[in-house]
Amino acid sequence: MTHLLDWLDVEEDDWKACILEALAFGEERDRAWGRHDGSALGMVFFNDSLRTRVSMELAASELGVRSVTVTPGSGTWGFAWDEGRPMNGDEAEHIREAVGVMSRYCHVLGVRLFASGTDRTADVSDALLTRFAASSTVPVINLESASRHPCQALADATVLHRHFGEGEDLAGKKFVLSWAPHPKPLPMAVPNSTLLMATRLGMDVVLARPDGFELDESVIDAARRQATTAGGSFSETDDQNAAADGAHVIYAKAWGGFGRYDDPESEADLRLSKSDWRITSETMQLTDGGQFMHCLPVRRGVVVDDAVLDGESSLHLDQAEFRLHAQKAILDWLLRDRNLRDGESAGDGR
Amino acid sequence: MTHLLDWLDVEEDDWKACILEALAFGEERDRAWGRHDGSALGMVFFNDSLRTRVSMELAASELGVRSVTVTPGSGTWGFAWDEGRPMNGDEAEHIREAVGVMSRYCHVLGVRLFASGTDRTADVSDALLTRFAASSTVPVINLESASRHPCQALADATVLHRHFGEGEDLAGKKFVLSWAPHPKPLPMAVPNSTLLMATRLGMDVVLARPDGFELDESVIDAARRQATTAGGSFSETDDQNAAADGAHVIYAKAWGGFGRYDDPESEADLRLSKSDWRITSETMQLTDGGQFMHCLPVRRGVVVDDAVLDGESSLHLDQAEFRLHAQKAILDWLLRDRNLRDGESAGDGR
Amino acid sequence: MTHLLDWLDVEEDDWKACILEALAFGEERDRAWGRHDGSALGMVFFNDSLRTRVSMELAASELGVRSVTVTPGSGTWGFAWDEGRPMNGDEAEHIREAVGVMSRYCHVLGVRLFASGTDRTADVSDALLTRFAASSTVPVINLESASRHPCQALADATVLHRHFGEGEDLAGKKFVLSWAPHPKPLPMAVPNSTLLMATRLGMDVVLARPDGFELDESVIDAARRQATTAGGSFSETDDQNAAADGAHVIYAKAWGGFGRYDDPESEADLRLSKSDWRITSETMQLTDGGQFMHCLPVRRGVVVDDAVLDGESSLHLDQAEFRLHAQKAILDWLLRDRNLRDGESAGDGR
Repeated sequence: MTHLLDWLDVEEDDWKACILEALAFGEERDRAWGRHDGSALGMVFFNDSLRTRVSMELAASELGVRSVTVTPGSGTWGFAWDEGRPMNGDEAEHIREAVGVMSRYCHVLGVRLFASGTDRTADVSDALLTRFAASSTVPVINLESASRHPCQALADATVLHRHFGEGEDLAGKKFVLSWAPHPKPLPMAVPNSTLLMATRLGMDVVLARPDGFELDESVIDAARRQATTAGGSFSETDDQNAAADGAHVIYAKAWGGFGRYDDPESEADLRLSKSDWRITSETMQLTDGGQFMHCLPVRRGVVVDDAVLDGESSLHLDQAEFRLHAQKAILDWLLRDRNLRDGESAGDGR
Repeated sequence: MTHLLDWLDVEEDDWKACILEALAFGEERDRAWGRHDGSALGMVFFNDSLRTRVSMELAASELGVRSVTVTPGSGTWGFAWDEGRPMNGDEAEHIREAVGVMSRYCHVLGVRLFASGTDRTADVSDALLTRFAASSTVPVINLESASRHPCQALADATVLHRHFGEGEDLAGKKFVLSWAPHPKPLPMAVPNSTLLMATRLGMDVVLARPDGFELDESVIDAARRQATTAGGSFSETDDQNAAADGAHVIYAKAWGGFGRYDDPESEADLRLSKSDWRITSETMQLTDGGQFMHCLPVRRGVVVDDAVLDGESSLHLDQAEFRLHAQKAILDWLLRDRNLRDGESAGDGR
Repeated sequence: MTHLLDWLDVEEDDWKACILEALAFGEERDRAWGRHDGSALGMVFFNDSLRTRVSMELAASELGVRSVTVTPGSGTWGFAWDEGRPMNGDEAEHIREAVGVMSRYCHVLGVRLFASGTDRTADVSDALLTRFAASSTVPVINLESASRHPCQALADATVLHRHFGEGEDLAGKKFVLSWAPHPKPLPMAVPNSTLLMATRLGMDVVLARPDGFELDESVIDAARRQATTAGGSFSETDDQNAAADGAHVIYAKAWGGFGRYDDPESEADLRLSKSDWRITSETMQLTDGGQFMHCLPVRRGVVVDDAVLDGESSLHLDQAEFRLHAQKAILDWLLRDRNLRDGESAGDGR
């Protein structure tokens, strides 16, 4: 059984096939209409969502997949996660039963489960996501976990291919992932996945972030390895302007530094002192006619100036739109896989 | 592109066609089954709803339209509305992006956005609704805004036509919109739209309300103009019994006076002193075998006596039912319009 | 019109037909796909749910039934229940209108409405459920009320038939309903319905519970009558081990004693003193290779040990799965009934 927890676990062929499929859905939204009629998707949202829930519900229904959405703490109780501890607390149900039951009803599950912000080891290793997936007997799609956001990564990869031309090589294109200011210490799921996505595409990737906002070493190592394999490059800098120079893409994203786990106050001080990392028209003028990218939601005037977002060179709405197309590709991939396992032909997958 | 924010913006032909279509759906619920298969409706509810959400979700699905519902603050974050202000507050996303993104996923949007109760100018002009619609690239349906409730108005118009006979003229029928008591200063969306609906139908319309509960002058002016055009009449009075005399319809509705914006306490005192404006069996006996109407939810024993609501001469459940039929007519109208624009034939609108 | 409030009201033929239908859906999930295309199910959840909402939404959609879910207090207002009292409080709408309106939109309703825990008479008689159903003009399905949980009962009956062999008689099989510890005084809906289910199947039923945790006399009487009719037996004991001896099924369930209504503190003391009623591997070793059953959610280490739940002899996930199949059987039964009334052929039930 195949889960989609992180693209790092996925073969190159499947990753590339998903990009092509997402591009195709972007061209023709109604291809594969009802292909998986009769399948069911169950989604569990431990955190808020706009794009993800809306686009997943539509993605599912356009493929004929019925979806149900569960929001622990709102209409259903909270879940216990610990193993071997008597459940005398507030939680009425263990995640094992919750996921076990959903696996009986649904042919594929999705889960959103953000970083705790307090347990660095668990967050970096995506410990809760792993536990969730271990209780499932059907494929699980990561709808943003503590450390990864594969649906966003696929959407973004597809938008890059589409923008720069499907035939044209992305090699040689300079992709800057720039840290951005934010009042809150956001998780690292998006920057991690963005870095791994862009290096996998063979772009010349620069990670620009102030000291104190490094990403986890395991991610940096993987990005470096991928850049080598794919024939691109990877470097880090704390000089945003130098990074922007000649860039084809500025991908802005705010995140909290690892200092939040040990000394939240000084992390906040440091973070709030870096408001000049906001992306402005001046930043964009340093680029080679570069495109602005952001995964949304974005704080106007904090992360990026209105002029950039409302200008001609921002791909943020395309990125959001391609969440729909990307997730249809992911669902189609995992459900076709299931149908083959079941000895059923695709489209017959009830 | 056509929005439905207020029927005042809509041509007479379209308004009449929608009434006929809603009547037809009322006769035969399964006509046009799946007609817009593949279209998507996105709804954003900034306020509570029962009838509206349930009837819209069913209306959509019966036409083949997939619907997704977003409730800011519950499962998704709140939105920022101000232009040009750095988003350093609680709101994680600007309404521009939220609506922009929904426009990429959906072919039509719906929004419920009640009066603030604190900013009279913004409420009367439906400023937030206008801003919402301005960010949308697809048609927007007003599911009750600060000042208008067009879905209710169409349902009510249809119920009136159906009750008094489609062929028979509504001219000469006396329609009384009566203010009613309520513990809270409710918004004016329903009374505004009801007045504009009944005058447009050419009925003899009387607005009965205590002093201090006048509607906005712009609405009164429009009602007056419409009455003239349609060959009916319009008048105002603060004498409920005189209004009820010989009426064919008593449409009760509670709302707060404009005093709530400047001096909420004295508005409340005045409002609570008018509990004898409750509609009773005695009120109904003054009418010409008149029908009772109310848009629901209604407070029994406060707005109207149980005996009236539970009697033979109340149309309130028909009004609720016709929300379904009316909204199917509206969706069909806006989506056919879209299909024509896209050069697609109806039913092919994916 | 047929409601499903309690299986006690349902003829033996219908009960047996529903079991067979649920078994058939368990074998072949896609039989009767879309059979009731065009029907609508409205569900009102006054209490939290995981299995029930998810399985009902999927059950409905697999039969072609569109479903809408309402959660009073979350996205919609609370409802008033009292008759003849002016609605001057917080509730904006009376249950009469709420249910009346839903009846206009939907062909079948479902409602979850737990025990108050404060009004014993109302809880035992399911007074609110009765009031809800009285306002409906379409069939109402009880999705767990103060005193009954018929959907769970049908799922459990079906799992028992499937496990012990459809052909093989359940007569002679020893079924133990065992009270279990819990930090909260849970309602009696599940134990009541479980007892009535097992006695109706003609099993040898033993109710094991500490003194102070008796079920209502009317339920005990009905269980006794059913056991006689069905050729099984029924007895009560406060000795859990004696009950477990030679059992084929241990069905564990926590509930609060009737003491909660008069003296909640001493009920809590008594309940918390009985933690040794937890089902352990030792308990199961007393049985005749018995199966463990629980309706979920279950508190691990409080109600039952992990070793039992994670072992080979637990049917809890099957029970959860069969909620889906059982509810499809129930929907199919009530909607076919409706179609016959309407003079329509099944499958044409729009």
